[in-house]
Amino acid sequence: MTNEQYPSKLLERAVSEFARLPGIGRKTALRLTLHLLRQDSAAVHAFSESLTRLRDEVKYCRVCHNISDTDVCDICANPLRDASTICVVENIRSVLSVENTGQYHGLYHVLGGVISPMDGIGPADLELESLVERVAAGGVREVILALNPTMEGDTTNFYISRKLAPYPDVRLTVLARGVSVGDDLEYTDEVTLGRSIVNRVELAQEKNGL
Amino acid sequence: MTNEQYPSKLLERAVSEFARLPGIGRKTALRLTLHLLRQDSAAVHAFSESLTRLRDEVKYCRVCHNISDTDVCDICANPLRDASTICVVENIRSVLSVENTGQYHGLYHVLGGVISPMDGIGPADLELESLVERVAAGGVREVILALNPTMEGDTTNFYISRKLAPYPDVRLTVLARGVSVGDDLEYTDEVTLGRSIVNRVELAQEKNGL
Repeated sequence: MTNEQYPSKLLERAVSEFARLPGIGRKTALRLTLHLLRQDSAAVHAFSESLTRLRDEVKYCRVCHNISDTDVCDICANPLRDASTICVVENIRSVLSVENTGQYHGLYHVLGGVISPMDGIGPADLELESLVERVAAGGVREVILALNPTMEGDTTNFYISRKLAPYPDVRLTVLARGVSVGDDLEYTDEVTLGRSIVNRVELAQEKNGL
Repeated sequence: MTNEQYPSKLLERAVSEFARLPGIGRKTALRLTLHLLRQDSAAVHAFSESLTRLRDEVKYCRVCHNISDTDVCDICANPLRDASTICVVENIRSVLSVENTGQYHGLYHVLGGVISPMDGIGPADLELESLVERVAAGGVREVILALNPTMEGDTTNFYISRKLAPYPDVRLTVLARGVSVGDDLEYTDEVTLGRSIVNRVELAQEKNGL
């Protein structure tokens, strides 16, 4: 389908642009493009303006580097949030995931990725220095490392633990790994199941957590 | 996930716009939006300009109503195409599908839909009058009805056959229906399989066709 001939260069270009988005093939790109073509001109302008405005006007919080409309994001600026706890995450999607649980009331620190020598991403490419500065400024009691459970995530956790070693009063924690709620033991991988046995918790404690 | 709180109104708006596209849920919309956010500003502007330009500048061929950059599309303007055959299709996607087969060298007529009383689409909403005019102008020897094999497609075929009744010299044909190439008889629905038996062709003829 890639050498498909389109009857219009404008159509061709719009489809190609859509097909550059991740997970969008040319068939889907054509379907989306033809859908937009059927909409009001105003609706298409609204769609495209929302993208350029986001790209050109969005800010990143100067404290936690989360996406924001203001210099300091709503979470960092909220006096009701617990400023003594920082949850370190890889990206904005992780912030949204943690926020959705409704279980976390501290602040965040968005690294913008994880250390990955294979992809040429070193500590200097991430917001690691600013994390150390936040901890050094004082008032932080706990740093929760909530990176994705991959080798790169573990490497980054190790790097952060070394950088924060001069602050022994700051508690360093990681997300509990274990069997997913609603999951079947039969289909849980053995590493996860193994960790969930080693890190088993008292029934009374588990009930408190929920 | 629909009542998810986004840290930025600009992000919220862009995600909502993406999520209005068919088949794009909010999770995918967020992924696409954050992807664009990581691109150069110029790339995002190019993407969004390609959509608004398509919507505002695209033309429809005044002969066959296919999408086009010019008043008369490349297919209608091509002297090498057989102007005595018109393939009637529902939409632009069908034109691309038939063109992709490389088996058709005539012209097209894009109806812009099919007659569907349930959706409030009557003959007047489609390019049916202009099809009759093209046939009435003379020079057409065959009209191939290549609508999707649905009840609405069949209704439209019947309507066209009535409208073209005054031109008995024009041959009216429909696409052959039968077992898909590479398909298993076991999984072919009985209506299709039944028609493929009734309309069976000589082996020699079938080989010629390929």
